Amino acid sequence: MSEISRNSVGIVSAQTAHFDAPLTLKNGEILPQFDLVYETYGELNASKSNAVLICHALSGNHHVAGKYAETDKNAGWWDNLIGPNKPLDTNKFFVIGVNNLAGCHGSSGPSSIRPKSKKTYGSSFPIVTVEDWVNSQARLLDHLGIETLAAVIGGSLGGMQALQWTIAYPDRIKHALVIASAPNLTAQNMAFNEVARQAIITDPEFYDGDYYAHNTVPRRGLRIARMLGHITYLSDDAMGEKFGRKLKDKIKYSFDVEFEMESYLRYQGDKFAGEFDANTYLRMTRALDYYDPALEHGGDLSKALKKVKAEFLVVSFTSDWRFSPDRSREIVKALLDNELTVSYAEVTALHGHDAFLMPDAHYHAILRAYLQKVEV
Amino acid sequence: MSEISRNSVGIVSAQTAHFDAPLTLKNGEILPQFDLVYETYGELNASKSNAVLICHALSGNHHVAGKYAETDKNAGWWDNLIGPNKPLDTNKFFVIGVNNLAGCHGSSGPSSIRPKSKKTYGSSFPIVTVEDWVNSQARLLDHLGIETLAAVIGGSLGGMQALQWTIAYPDRIKHALVIASAPNLTAQNMAFNEVARQAIITDPEFYDGDYYAHNTVPRRGLRIARMLGHITYLSDDAMGEKFGRKLKDKIKYSFDVEFEMESYLRYQGDKFAGEFDANTYLRMTRALDYYDPALEHGGDLSKALKKVKAEFLVVSFTSDWRFSPDRSREIVKALLDNELTVSYAEVTALHGHDAFLMPDAHYHAILRAYLQKVEV
Repeated sequence: MSEISRNSVGIVSAQTAHFDAPLTLKNGEILPQFDLVYETYGELNASKSNAVLICHALSGNHHVAGKYAETDKNAGWWDNLIGPNKPLDTNKFFVIGVNNLAGCHGSSGPSSIRPKSKKTYGSSFPIVTVEDWVNSQARLLDHLGIETLAAVIGGSLGGMQALQWTIAYPDRIKHALVIASAPNLTAQNMAFNEVARQAIITDPEFYDGDYYAHNTVPRRGLRIARMLGHITYLSDDAMGEKFGRKLKDKIKYSFDVEFEMESYLRYQGDKFAGEFDANTYLRMTRALDYYDPALEHGGDLSKALKKVKAEFLVVSFTSDWRFSPDRSREIVKALLDNELTVSYAEVTALHGHDAFLMPDAHYHAILRAYLQKVEV
Repeated sequence: MSEISRNSVGIVSAQTAHFDAPLTLKNGEILPQFDLVYETYGELNASKSNAVLICHALSGNHHVAGKYAETDKNAGWWDNLIGPNKPLDTNKFFVIGVNNLAGCHGSSGPSSIRPKSKKTYGSSFPIVTVEDWVNSQARLLDHLGIETLAAVIGGSLGGMQALQWTIAYPDRIKHALVIASAPNLTAQNMAFNEVARQAIITDPEFYDGDYYAHNTVPRRGLRIARMLGHITYLSDDAMGEKFGRKLKDKIKYSFDVEFEMESYLRYQGDKFAGEFDANTYLRMTRALDYYDPALEHGGDLSKALKKVKAEFLVVSFTSDWRFSPDRSREIVKALLDNELTVSYAEVTALHGHDAFLMPDAHYHAILRAYLQKVEV
């Protein structure tokens, strides 16, 4: 048995589903057709009752577990969670990863070619919402012949999608795992998003979102956005422990890299700016900003959850200042107001918002225990 | 009595002191000559024992109190603190405000003309430190014939200067008021500075710091830096109370201003980018990064404060996540280790780091009480 296949889903490949029926978006626009790229791990059982959908966050995608080739350096972004005998056990569950609409990894988005036109969508790609994503994901389930999900799981922006699934499709969801998430963003969170977007939009290479036609990308702006993002993903303490005030070398009194943390941020910014699409980044942050299921209910989240039927596991992390435990508790309270079945875990973790992606033993034990009792 | 003169220092004017003796900087460079622009309020007494120096923070300057003309819309940046019968009472004290070296309000800095050359310093202006500022401020005291300060006062980066005064010139300082400050920056604080600098430096209009010669300014980068700064000056709760998720209008599903907070941030960013010098901003943030008096003492702040003689008032604010109360307590502990006289107040305040500039009644009462007992 090779290294990769031990507790791994192994070599995986992505598939594309094409949808020809128009999708009406929350902003009123209609997407006449679209593609969703997805991966699956494990086997769908005969009664099609063991499907679990993974919803991704800001920069995530459908490649959640496994590798495309033995030689791949990195596995999918939640590979530590998903596989045979892992907390989300692919011996039991059929797991689906999907790239969201407006993404940049194969699903229809600003950087994909608009059918018939042979040109990229660019700025004309709609500003989609969490609600739109969930509706498009429901189409994917239809395509796969799956009526009901054993569970929907997501962290951060993915947790908002998991929550929205239970609101929009109460009869199609048995369990929702909402991790390091919130029922809406705080003003501070939205402010960070706004700075990130402004860095991109005011980059001279942005060309109002139609940079593809100019054979360029707003690399500088996207780099700044990502550097800023990384600060908010880590806790102050985690940054302190990881980097502190450690110098790369003797102080040079310059604006070059002096401290190790600067080197880390620049590396992360450069890497991301070379891989990710700026128009996707803009849309992901806007989806975060807009999501607020309580808004149509006078700000009353309990009312917004009135039709929900799913059972919930809500998880937060003590050092997460982006989606703090307080925000998870708001979700828990509103679920309990509706007499729903909720488990809540507040995990002591140093790593801030990023903790939801990490294989913390206590955290994974909680997910494992919860998923073991999910009936399929 | 006009409105302006009630409890106000009234109409003020700035003066410039020129220094011809070279100043050796911490980075090894020598500034052969320099100017400092300053203002004074109140009267220096015969024994010259009532002088108080105000040290400014990142974007501050020498215009601390009063107005230049009755028609001025705004008074100096700490006008709520300083004036006849105000907490820092100009009936008792002779107050000095000074613009730091590398500033952009009249003291020698990147945007000023290098003597003889008729060209701006631009990128050639040195990267100065808190220690350099204090040394240059000591020259200003010499120029004014003041040997000893009754007090030195500063908030944030200004507090670092106040602390440094007590280390570098223990015999010239009776009292130090160190407000909303820290003995060094955390990795997270430095990370925000790095993102701000990278936004400026990667702006195509930056021209390696010599944008003056190109008749332009890196406005986009400076705007992003300032927007980011504003998020860190306010607490999450203060942003929540001030803006929350309030919309400007109906949601438009766009990247334009949708939420009130976005409008505020853009306004602050635009205003600052039109007024402040980017090269100054870079240098102010680097001075913050580098300040770390414990570094030469194996990280032991108590040892760094061994020669200090001043009495201290240290003030922090509960909601300040940029310079948290924990950081002020580190200063207090190190002072107490040296058996110095220290008063410490942790003020309950909503407004985050910005609280040090606000006329909170409890905060001002503490400053008033402390300054009343300062003997002159």
